[in-house]
Amino acid sequence: MAKVLTPQNEDFPRWYQDVVTKAEMAENGPVKGQQVIRPTGYALWERMVSGMDDRIKATGTENASFPLLIPHSYLQKEANHVEGFAPEFWTVTQAGGKELEEPVVVRPTSETVIGEYMAKWVQSYRDLPLLLNQWANVMRYEMRTRLFLRTSEFLWQEGHTAHATYEDAHEFTLRILHEVYADFMERDLAMPVLRGLKTVEERFAGALNTFTCEAMMRDGKSLQMGTSHELGQNFSKAFDMQYLGSDGQQHLCWTTSWGTSTRMVGGLIMAHGDDKGLRVPPRLAPVQAYVMSVKDGEGVSEAARALHDELIGSGVRSRLNDRTDVAFGRRAVDAELKGYPVRIEVGPRDLAEGKAVVVRRVEGTKTPVALESVVKVVTEALEADQQAMFDEALRFRADRTVAVKTVDEAIEAAATGFAQLPWDVCGVEGEAKAAAKGVTVRCL
Amino acid sequence: MAKVLTPQNEDFPRWYQDVVTKAEMAENGPVKGQQVIRPTGYALWERMVSGMDDRIKATGTENASFPLLIPHSYLQKEANHVEGFAPEFWTVTQAGGKELEEPVVVRPTSETVIGEYMAKWVQSYRDLPLLLNQWANVMRYEMRTRLFLRTSEFLWQEGHTAHATYEDAHEFTLRILHEVYADFMERDLAMPVLRGLKTVEERFAGALNTFTCEAMMRDGKSLQMGTSHELGQNFSKAFDMQYLGSDGQQHLCWTTSWGTSTRMVGGLIMAHGDDKGLRVPPRLAPVQAYVMSVKDGEGVSEAARALHDELIGSGVRSRLNDRTDVAFGRRAVDAELKGYPVRIEVGPRDLAEGKAVVVRRVEGTKTPVALESVVKVVTEALEADQQAMFDEALRFRADRTVAVKTVDEAIEAAATGFAQLPWDVCGVEGEAKAAAKGVTVRCL
Ligand SMILES: [Zn+2]
Ligand SMILES: [Zn+2]
Repeated sequence: MAKVLTPQNEDFPRWYQDVVTKAEMAENGPVKGQQVIRPTGYALWERMVSGMDDRIKATGTENASFPLLIPHSYLQKEANHVEGFAPEFWTVTQAGGKELEEPVVVRPTSETVIGEYMAKWVQSYRDLPLLLNQWANVMRYEMRTRLFLRTSEFLWQEGHTAHATYEDAHEFTLRILHEVYADFMERDLAMPVLRGLKTVEERFAGALNTFTCEAMMRDGKSLQMGTSHELGQNFSKAFDMQYLGSDGQQHLCWTTSWGTSTRMVGGLIMAHGDDKGLRVPPRLAPVQAYVMSVKDGEGVSEAARALHDELIGSGVRSRLNDRTDVAFGRRAVDAELKGYPVRIEVGPRDLAEGKAVVVRRVEGTKTPVALESVVKVVTEALEADQQAMFDEALRFRADRTVAVKTVDEAIEAAATGFAQLPWDVCGVEGEAKAAAKGVTVRCL
Repeated sequence: MAKVLTPQNEDFPRWYQDVVTKAEMAENGPVKGQQVIRPTGYALWERMVSGMDDRIKATGTENASFPLLIPHSYLQKEANHVEGFAPEFWTVTQAGGKELEEPVVVRPTSETVIGEYMAKWVQSYRDLPLLLNQWANVMRYEMRTRLFLRTSEFLWQEGHTAHATYEDAHEFTLRILHEVYADFMERDLAMPVLRGLKTVEERFAGALNTFTCEAMMRDGKSLQMGTSHELGQNFSKAFDMQYLGSDGQQHLCWTTSWGTSTRMVGGLIMAHGDDKGLRVPPRLAPVQAYVMSVKDGEGVSEAARALHDELIGSGVRSRLNDRTDVAFGRRAVDAELKGYPVRIEVGPRDLAEGKAVVVRRVEGTKTPVALESVVKVVTEALEADQQAMFDEALRFRADRTVAVKTVDEAIEAAATGFAQLPWDVCGVEGEAKAAAKGVTVRCL
């Protein structure tokens, strides 16, 4: 059989592009840098939204919806912010057949418009903390784009909070980093993440500090999976976000913002995929068990449906594929590509012995299992493989992380993995030197 | 106590505006016609998304995500479509600091871009039906706007499907109308809806037929709650959406599209609200039971929390309000405004007798209930009030619907409710005559 995908060690970016296309995850949109997310890719994102949303709500944060278009004047109110984002603006100049009096920008992020409204809603210390989040699309102009990883339009959540004190804002920034982001990435995505500070150079435009979750991809490179920003009083000053304290005085709020996006789908692919395609961790997987009729035969279709129903009844997210009009080999390759954790193949020969074959995507094992034991075997496999994927990713990272003593050693080590170097050895100069070689300081 | 809201029968639109503002549902955005949906309003929308999404998926439809910006050239491919929507375009002309070569339009709806991709994905009759949906934001320029009801930007779902035959497309259009839209509106929103065809005048731009769900508001007027369109082969011709049939010949697909939006939130408010504010049907309600500490006192806070925990444990969506630093009266008025179905008031005096007061929003009753019976009483009230709200809305509509024999009678009847008139009596001329008096033919 011809190789479906370019092997990872031959050309990793090409492998990534192959998986995204052939597993029907996404395609380029008609306008530069935009993407069409197909059902297979979107179902992963929906599960991410669900896992993240539960954790976000558990912090007391409520969802809301702010407008897509932001007046240019709002974006200018915080100097570093506009300087950082202006080159990426998509600008609406016409509406209803007329030129607009003031051009409006498709939101690249919503600190400014949300700042304007928070300033109205926050009056007294009793209104704080004000904890908001929105699930939305944003646009940033990009010259070079890659599906899921860097696109002009992407889907994301952006949290925005206002607090009475520096300490409260600081703690909330870290709570999001650890309890929401890292917890979701490690437990649901089975991706170990490094958590720490971004350098001044890599910080969000307008922030005091940016905290990040960084994960290692299968090419040894790092991907930024989510960031949580301490905005200090920069935006509360710009939008005059004041509250009356219990001391009867007016005070400026302390704000935070934090975001994760469809880029996580790209990270998931690159952290767990192999030369056969995607591998989806069971806890995240929209389809955990994929029940296939191998070919037509006495009772095959009925047995496949019965297993599917039994799996659903036991709380397993099962999908039935009964399309015996499509060659079995082609359907099996497609199932590997899409990375369903467990496949159950129901064919006439095994069925005659009262069995079906359970194929595990992570281990690659194919085991004939008595029909009455399938649900138990599948349930245990899903549990075990979630842990196995995390352990494997952790080992992979450990094997490719070295402690180094100089910037030159760090640059060399970064070719195959992560390098750990004390910041007082590296410093801003070391960062610039590394950057010239295409190596970035990811996490302090 | 001063009236919080303008009474409905004094000025219905003003009442609506008061509820939206004072129940903290939504506000105007900074750019014309846009809206900020606040947590109280957004939580209703989230529950609508959830109830609708389950029903949409039950039809076999999968979610996907298509780009926000559509090239102008795509929109021009279907003549009636572009003619209908062009006056409402919001147009992006600049990105990344440069003028775009081709202006792009913020999607007013996505038939065109989805048509382009479906044409690629559909090759053979085996690929049909192709059933897609997206949850997204769209923009249409509007001169006169009202929060939730008519806004320049709104959130919605838009379904787009391709079928092999006219019959299959026709049946799917009706399945969405009845099994998804009307079923959700009647069961979850407790809003009876009339289902039928739109006139040629009111039809979607580019459709063969538009089916609608129409609900009566408390001012006797109709609101279009959702529409399902048969697009025939108009878009498959425009985007060359062909498939190879089992007969070895190429055929054009038959397509449908269907949508519901945040306008449903406005409909919910206007169908069920009263002079005290919103009334939310229990099945939809994000907060079904609202447990309040009346004031500080021996064991009050503990008892309130215990009831809240017990309700949550019994599957009731409960929220605890323990803010005794805010006057009880103010909190109670706010709870009425926001329309929580059941309120449980825990105060020192009742508590001393082992009781709490259960207040039902629909009936307006206040009943002291033994603590150990609260969960049972609340659960039964939620069940009963869902039905009571539907029955009330149905009676209200029946009382305000008259069968008439002439267009003049219909115009007169429309001042206070619905008029039923045979279409062969009305016709296009009657429709034009009624339109001149501000009366529209809503549903055939
Ligand atoms: Zn102070
Ligand atoms: Zn034919």
